[in-house]
Amino acid sequence: MSLLVIGTVAFDAIETPFGKTDKIVGGAATYASLAASYFYDKVKIVAVVGDDFPESEIKNLNNHNVDTEGLQIKQGEKSFFWAGKYHNDMNSRDTLVTELNVLADFDPIIPESYQDCEYLMLGNLTPQIQQTVIKRLKNRPKLIVMDTMNFWMDIAMDDLLETIKMVDVLAINDSEARQLSGEYSLVKAARKIAAMGPKYLIIKKGEHGALLFSEGKIFSAPALPLADVFDPTGAGDTFAGGFIGYLAKVGTINFNNMKNAIIYGSALASFCVEKFGTERLTSLTPAEVSARIQEFVSLSQFAIIE
Amino acid sequence: MSLLVIGTVAFDAIETPFGKTDKIVGGAATYASLAASYFYDKVKIVAVVGDDFPESEIKNLNNHNVDTEGLQIKQGEKSFFWAGKYHNDMNSRDTLVTELNVLADFDPIIPESYQDCEYLMLGNLTPQIQQTVIKRLKNRPKLIVMDTMNFWMDIAMDDLLETIKMVDVLAINDSEARQLSGEYSLVKAARKIAAMGPKYLIIKKGEHGALLFSEGKIFSAPALPLADVFDPTGAGDTFAGGFIGYLAKVGTINFNNMKNAIIYGSALASFCVEKFGTERLTSLTPAEVSARIQEFVSLSQFAIIE
Repeated sequence: MSLLVIGTVAFDAIETPFGKTDKIVGGAATYASLAASYFYDKVKIVAVVGDDFPESEIKNLNNHNVDTEGLQIKQGEKSFFWAGKYHNDMNSRDTLVTELNVLADFDPIIPESYQDCEYLMLGNLTPQIQQTVIKRLKNRPKLIVMDTMNFWMDIAMDDLLETIKMVDVLAINDSEARQLSGEYSLVKAARKIAAMGPKYLIIKKGEHGALLFSEGKIFSAPALPLADVFDPTGAGDTFAGGFIGYLAKVGTINFNNMKNAIIYGSALASFCVEKFGTERLTSLTPAEVSARIQEFVSLSQFAIIE
Repeated sequence: MSLLVIGTVAFDAIETPFGKTDKIVGGAATYASLAASYFYDKVKIVAVVGDDFPESEIKNLNNHNVDTEGLQIKQGEKSFFWAGKYHNDMNSRDTLVTELNVLADFDPIIPESYQDCEYLMLGNLTPQIQQTVIKRLKNRPKLIVMDTMNFWMDIAMDDLLETIKMVDVLAINDSEARQLSGEYSLVKAARKIAAMGPKYLIIKKGEHGALLFSEGKIFSAPALPLADVFDPTGAGDTFAGGFIGYLAKVGTINFNNMKNAIIYGSALASFCVEKFGTERLTSLTPAEVSARIQEFVSLSQFAIIE
């Protein structure tokens, strides 16, 4: 039994009001697998890099118990590269460079040893590639979580809808939920998206937390108010990885466990933004995670006495 | 012992994507006193109207146990009137008409029978008038809650800062907190505003809920996700009235009771927006309020099992 994460493993160059990095390691699968590894020790990734990707960074994933057999290394090619600059409010950013490189013709090959996959995290990629992964698994995983973005709604809506139909949980942000459904109200958006197939919908609202919708029930999770958001890159992927990692750990899929999974995912995301790139995620201790979970409890729990 | 609400009692004409009203009764003191009356039966108001204000509407307040001895009726003058039109997203609006009328030279006279005031809600008015009310009370109330708006930050910052220094709880929205503090991060904004005097700061975030800050502690309350927001007018005043009304009921001021007060205020605000004006607020039953509180519990409570 294992948790499979598919997505990008890549280089990012990031500029925020707090500083600037050269090329550092990033990518949805990197963040999500590291986050999941805090809760579950059988995390495997399918991704592609070029021969410019440092061996030491692959070792770093392995040190976090992330299985990289499915990480293709393309000789003579370069890894996916993104450069971006965040605005002062940290809620918006400009993309400065996008070099697809190895990603342009990525064929997600699933190693035989990955066929025990029970939990599947589809990080943001073309809906076609996401769908291919589902089809290449001999047994349908117990839980499929899918991330996507507005870009695919703009250029590949039919493919996207076909893929969404195949998953259990769709995790998108509020503006994406509005675009996908054509509804401004998130309650109405959730109803329309439920009719597209997924039993669970997570709407990520950044500094305003996240909403979980399923079968008429709603859960509202807070975000931890932070004095400084150092670098928001990867926060959504970290959230998703923590979310599915926690569910893989507890093993039972129901609304109450999903609520807790959202709190665990949010807690890891709150660490992610404290430093550039994956720096904070690769240095976390279980005690720090537990303490942060307690902060979420204090932040949002109350006891009504009528 | 009583709860005194000061603010406007006025006429509003409202247009939303769902419809349009003629002049209907509105005003911060109207919404706040009606909301408070659901939890506390000694609510009194200080406000001013013209002789155009219907006797039946004053009776309506009295029917909700709101004492109107302090409601001045100016013969030969007209009541404050505001007309506005909400945009499709309901988060922004255009003011079409503002007629100050009786409000232009409002002198807040406190009837002798109001001097037992233990809880004081300062609805949005000029900081000078808010301050005058505090000074005219012979005994400093046990709890003073103050609402204000960006307009006073633009034109009367010195007066505003002087008044803020005198209150226990400041309740403003996120953009107002940013303007008042000059900080984008709400955590940093809260620190600066705490240094201005108030022991408690509530930052209202509309559809994203509310944050309570006090002495390094933070509480994040959700907003109830709604399919339709029919008319947002008065939601903030309803929140404030429900908040202070609940605290007057429980009688003890501490962080835990404040958390619950925010949930009660949010619950009443979620009713307010379901219909135009005060319609929903004047027809609520205690059973409906209890059921709505339970919705907030389901919405935000979780149980971590490690």
